[in-house]
Amino acid sequence: MANSRFEYVRKYELDDSVLMNTWIVVRVDGRGFSRFVSEHHFEKPNDIRGIHAMNFAAAQVMKEFQADMTLAYGHSDEYSFVIHRSSSLFSRRSSKLVSTVVSCFASGFVFYWNRCFGADQPLLYPPVFDARVVCYPTDENLKDYLSWRQADCHINNLYNTCFWYLVQKGGRTNVEAEAELKTTVSADKNELLFSKFQVNYNNIEPIFRKGTILVGHAPDGEAKNSEHPVPVQARDSSNASEDSKSSLVHDVENEALNGFLADHKILKLHRDLISQDFWEQFGQTVLG
Amino acid sequence: MANSRFEYVRKYELDDSVLMNTWIVVRVDGRGFSRFVSEHHFEKPNDIRGIHAMNFAAAQVMKEFQADMTLAYGHSDEYSFVIHRSSSLFSRRSSKLVSTVVSCFASGFVFYWNRCFGADQPLLYPPVFDARVVCYPTDENLKDYLSWRQADCHINNLYNTCFWYLVQKGGRTNVEAEAELKTTVSADKNELLFSKFQVNYNNIEPIFRKGTILVGHAPDGEAKNSEHPVPVQARDSSNASEDSKSSLVHDVENEALNGFLADHKILKLHRDLISQDFWEQFGQTVLG
Amino acid sequence: MANSRFEYVRKYELDDSVLMNTWIVVRVDGRGFSRFVSEHHFEKPNDIRGIHAMNFAAAQVMKEFQADMTLAYGHSDEYSFVIHRSSSLFSRRSSKLVSTVVSCFASGFVFYWNRCFGADQPLLYPPVFDARVVCYPTDENLKDYLSWRQADCHINNLYNTCFWYLVQKGGRTNVEAEAELKTTVSADKNELLFSKFQVNYNNIEPIFRKGTILVGHAPDGEAKNSEHPVPVQARDSSNASEDSKSSLVHDVENEALNGFLADHKILKLHRDLISQDFWEQFGQTVLG
Amino acid sequence: MANSRFEYVRKYELDDSVLMNTWIVVRVDGRGFSRFVSEHHFEKPNDIRGIHAMNFAAAQVMKEFQADMTLAYGHSDEYSFVIHRSSSLFSRRSSKLVSTVVSCFASGFVFYWNRCFGADQPLLYPPVFDARVVCYPTDENLKDYLSWRQADCHINNLYNTCFWYLVQKGGRTNVEAEAELKTTVSADKNELLFSKFQVNYNNIEPIFRKGTILVGHAPDGEAKNSEHPVPVQARDSSNASEDSKSSLVHDVENEALNGFLADHKILKLHRDLISQDFWEQFGQTVLG
Ligand SMILES: Nc1nc2c(ncn2[C@H]2C[C@H](O)[C@@H](COP(=O)(O)OP(=O)(O)OP(=O)(O)O)O2)c(=O)[nH]1
Ligand SMILES: Nc1nc2c(ncn2[C@H]2C[C@H](O)[C@@H](COP(=O)(O)OP(=O)(O)OP(=O)(O)O)O2)c(=O)[nH]1
Ligand SMILES: Nc1nc2c(ncn2[C@H]2C[C@H](O)[C@@H](COP(=O)(O)OP(=O)(O)OP(=O)(O)O)O2)c(=O)[nH]1
Ligand SMILES: Nc1nc2c(ncn2[C@H]2C[C@H](O)[C@@H](COP(=O)(O)OP(=O)(O)OP(=O)(O)O)O2)c(=O)[nH]1
Ligand SMILES: O=P(O)(O)OP(=O)(O)OP(=O)(O)O
Ligand SMILES: O=P(O)(O)OP(=O)(O)OP(=O)(O)O
Ligand SMILES: O=P(O)(O)OP(=O)(O)OP(=O)(O)O
Ligand SMILES: O=P(O)(O)OP(=O)(O)OP(=O)(O)O
Ligand SMILES: [Mg+2]
Ligand SMILES: [Mg+2]
Ligand SMILES: [Mg+2]
Ligand SMILES: [Mg+2]
Ligand SMILES: [Mg+2]
Ligand SMILES: [Mg+2]
Ligand SMILES: [Mg+2]
Ligand SMILES: [Mg+2]
Ligand SMILES: [Mg+2]
Ligand SMILES: [Mg+2]
Ligand SMILES: [Mg+2]
Ligand SMILES: [Mg+2]
Repeated sequence: MANSRFEYVRKYELDDSVLMNTWIVVRVDGRGFSRFVSEHHFEKPNDIRGIHAMNFAAAQVMKEFQADMTLAYGHSDEYSFVIHRSSSLFSRRSSKLVSTVVSCFASGFVFYWNRCFGADQPLLYPPVFDARVVCYPTDENLKDYLSWRQADCHINNLYNTCFWYLVQKGGRTNVEAEAELKTTVSADKNELLFSKFQVNYNNIEPIFRKGTILVGHAPDGEAKNSEHPVPVQARDSSNASEDSKSSLVHDVENEALNGFLADHKILKLHRDLISQDFWEQFGQTVLG
Repeated sequence: MANSRFEYVRKYELDDSVLMNTWIVVRVDGRGFSRFVSEHHFEKPNDIRGIHAMNFAAAQVMKEFQADMTLAYGHSDEYSFVIHRSSSLFSRRSSKLVSTVVSCFASGFVFYWNRCFGADQPLLYPPVFDARVVCYPTDENLKDYLSWRQADCHINNLYNTCFWYLVQKGGRTNVEAEAELKTTVSADKNELLFSKFQVNYNNIEPIFRKGTILVGHAPDGEAKNSEHPVPVQARDSSNASEDSKSSLVHDVENEALNGFLADHKILKLHRDLISQDFWEQFGQTVLG
Repeated sequence: MANSRFEYVRKYELDDSVLMNTWIVVRVDGRGFSRFVSEHHFEKPNDIRGIHAMNFAAAQVMKEFQADMTLAYGHSDEYSFVIHRSSSLFSRRSSKLVSTVVSCFASGFVFYWNRCFGADQPLLYPPVFDARVVCYPTDENLKDYLSWRQADCHINNLYNTCFWYLVQKGGRTNVEAEAELKTTVSADKNELLFSKFQVNYNNIEPIFRKGTILVGHAPDGEAKNSEHPVPVQARDSSNASEDSKSSLVHDVENEALNGFLADHKILKLHRDLISQDFWEQFGQTVLG
Repeated sequence: MANSRFEYVRKYELDDSVLMNTWIVVRVDGRGFSRFVSEHHFEKPNDIRGIHAMNFAAAQVMKEFQADMTLAYGHSDEYSFVIHRSSSLFSRRSSKLVSTVVSCFASGFVFYWNRCFGADQPLLYPPVFDARVVCYPTDENLKDYLSWRQADCHINNLYNTCFWYLVQKGGRTNVEAEAELKTTVSADKNELLFSKFQVNYNNIEPIFRKGTILVGHAPDGEAKNSEHPVPVQARDSSNASEDSKSSLVHDVENEALNGFLADHKILKLHRDLISQDFWEQFGQTVLG
């Protein structure tokens, strides 16, 4: 075989399998998304179109690896995918896992872009994502990992919400807003939103405050119950206003995405992962 | 900081940096492309539109990492990217390298799909690619690696060319064609093409026989000289025919791709990597 | 600093830390011990002097790493050391763990040789041991690991006991004995020992049948209770005989070793690890 | 097989092979030797008996792996072993390499202790060594690695020599000596030795200044020429003195060690590795 003289180079590949019987998390994160979101005129602090594109991409990944993947969690420019501890997908080879997940995600993000952004905002260049594999030995570690990401979502979103209210409604410059928030803790930020802008942070769309959870293998029936956020006014009319946010409410629904999720029996949730509630309801489905 | 209770999970990330001072190759390969090409009605054995999409995606990668990447080589559904041995890109962290390269590739492939396939063949679903990192300690090892991939291109392309001539022009069934080729060596296949179909294998487009080499950092002037294959008839009129292949000749040019390459001073070549010639001309640019 | 020109080579060291929160097992195994035992005239199938040397070496390791090591288990030419899942010894760097454990073991084995073998059998050359690190994510995995090693001890010891009875008492050649045992299962071997040699396998010294367990952090009081095997005759007088084995009984005690163990509060046991009993008694000490 | 229920735990072992075609260095270093040397009353700054024990241990390692190991270099409590880039010893598995080398070294150190230290200084407890594997892709990297270690030897030895002259002959306390040396560069230290103690640093035994190089595969004839340091007086009578150092001269020879080395055709040298000279003479033997 003509190949033989060179074929020895194959032996330079090193095995990179990860430890058996551990939860495998693949976390994907947009590379240089600060620039990407600005060039694509994302709304601040959250652009529901971008979130839909991320969720479409994540759903595509869930579909691709559905036998092995039980949960995904995303917010901002990142998504974490949980591969079951018993999985032997790609013999648990790290680079196979990381590369197929991230390429599926990137590929899906571009593929579904137009469906989420419409004709007004074409994709200007192909986005890049990094990804890594991290293993967690116990269920507790895995839950703490997800809590870590959701706490990050909360902290960033609370900060960003305050920041952009100060800038967009409060007339502050970016520098002033930053200075004003520097020493505040969570309670201060909640208070600031309420006293200055009559905004109850807890009434902000859960999709922004909590991020998105995708649950695979959802028991029949439940997959249909993906959380479709109730309009803000309906929930808390005392805070109703003609405020631009209310226009968001309609955008929150993305029929194409919801159809895709239902087809693949993937449940979409925007709720607390840190408290026990979630795990009482979905522990068996996700960890079992 | 609210994060602190969970932040410990970050310590579960393990360092996966690769050895210093070695050539880093990231090889990307389409996942399940046998099915993908058939569902997208790729021409057999080679579809120039698909090759353009691969080359666009690879050029996007070269552009993204141009400071560290000196050469790329691709054929079929795969592409290999060479990162310079002196590079400290991402501190040489394996998963960062593999994930950003493959996601850029996948993202680019989808992004440029329409430009290559036009309206006739829309992309039906987002493709997935796997990728791996392999290190080579010496220049010789790196050259042998590239030779290995090009020898693979040659062997597959010669086989596939025979196979599809037998099936498409020779009226064989797939099974018959396979049987007929089973025991043949290269010389037999060349002879078969010539005697049965008046095809001189060496006149087949180099882009099919040799694959595509992209050279970054090309010295000024040379980047303009990317090889734009001379039409078959012009080169070897004795073999001219009204044969359907000749229609390919025009497709081989993709102005958008060539413009992109010229803009980013990337040289595109379809030539032998195994012999010394290439290295005499480009050794300094690629390895220096 | 004169060092600086060369100091860059330090960066070629790659991090090899193992995953957090997993049980770390370091297994040591004599290299080429088939030859070593024969050149040092070990008794067959078990030489209590060699076992004492192994146990001394293991106790030395337990002492050295006592804060992090909770259990060790050994038989034949191997010893497994369990480092607690919460340990951050050497930042969990694999090569540090493996090298310090195995060098301590090897060094101890040579150091205590004379104390175990006396003047009759000097050490002829320095023995070599290999070692590896394996991580286990759950307590169950760890127990199964130890069960695996003890099952190995049982199988080998039952076989070897039969083999050497057949050869030493039964007048078989090695080849004949091997052939005779080839198709036997455990029950057959027990039967063979009893019917042909009036030996009840269960009366053989537990140190040979079960191997040796060392428990660190033993609760006060318990460390004094290391199992000192009851003489065979006492336990099962029906099988009493003037048989040379009975002379072994006295050798089983090694006062120096027992003193060393007591000094360092290490408990020595020769009992079943596979059944729940052991874990009910020592689970908290070992795993807690 | 009774083993089967537990045997799955074997799959938790991860492959740790190192990259092909790179120089493999295993560096061994005494653990906590500051304490060990003081408890064993090593002479300061260098104890020739300790160096002999280190060299015996290293020679044992060279002998054990002679087919794959071409050079070793040691000083102080460390030794580096060079395994040829083409070696496939233990399939290049990192933990096998590190564990067998370091256990052979530790085992050898204890085994040969009495031969080096005599009855006056028994070994009080088994010493521990750590070890690591580092790969170097080029010959230049390997030479720089060895130069790095020898530069370290030089810097430490020059410092220690000054320090102990100041303390032992100059009547300084440790603190005073340290302060006096704090801001000095090499030239200052040479000058200090000469002006204060009439010692020409270059006349100090090369074994102390340069460390010890062991060359395996030495061409026939050369192995006999291991460097047996010429007595100080002979070389530089102008510096002759009744100084206690001269008594060292005889100790430097260790007949047992030299015999061992000659038997195994291992060359022992105490010379410069940093300049080209060494590599001109031994490059072929070591690197070829
Ligand atoms: N305006 C807006 N910005 C968003 C949205 N989602 C994410 N971003 C931005 C906020 C951050 O600048 C960025 C994500 O932060 P990262 O820490 O991942 O930074 P970035 O991707 O720039 O850098 P990296 O390559 O990940 O190190 O994306 C959104 O919906 N709207
Ligand atoms: N018809 C046609 N097929 C192509 C072309 N380029 C690549 N292919 C096909 C031929 C092979 O079936 C496939 C590439 O082979 P692989 O060994 O990578 O197989 P595949 O991707 O199916 O499986 P994998 O997931 O990589 O293990 O792609 C093309 O231009 N035209
Ligand atoms: N006669 C006798 N032999 C023993 C005793 N303990 C261990 N052995 C022998 C039995 C085996 O031949 C050998 C251990 O088996 P291994 O599978 O570890 O083989 P070995 O060390 O020869 O090769 P290796 O370098 O580990 O692959 O040691 C003993 O107490 N008495
Ligand atoms: N007096 C005396 N000391 C020596 C001799 N050879 C080595 N040493 C001492 C000097 C240092 O304190 C020690 C080696 O330095 P290291 O940096 O390896 O420190 P040490 O082994 O204490 O700590 P480690 O466990 O390696 O981090 O051994 C000798 O011949 N004579
Ligand atoms: O994908 P193949 O079959 O060409 O061979 P490989 O890529 O070396 O196999 P794998 O993708 O499993 O590493
Ligand atoms: O990307 P950051 O800054 O949030 O932090 P990180 O992802 O842990 O850092 P890196 O991407 O370099 O691993
Ligand atoms: O041991 P040191 O302090 O000389 O430095 P090191 O050996 O590089 O550190 P470590 O032993 O922790 O790898
Ligand atoms: O040594 P063996 O044959 O019992 O089996 P192993 O130890 O798993 O093999 P290796 O020592 O090569 O890892
Ligand atoms: Mg990051
Ligand atoms: Mg980002
Ligand atoms: Mg981010
Ligand atoms: Mg493959
Ligand atoms: Mg493929
Ligand atoms: Mg392929
Ligand atoms: Mg083994
Ligand atoms: Mg063995
Ligand atoms: Mg063994
Ligand atoms: Mg150290
Ligand atoms: Mg040391
Ligand atoms: Mg040292």
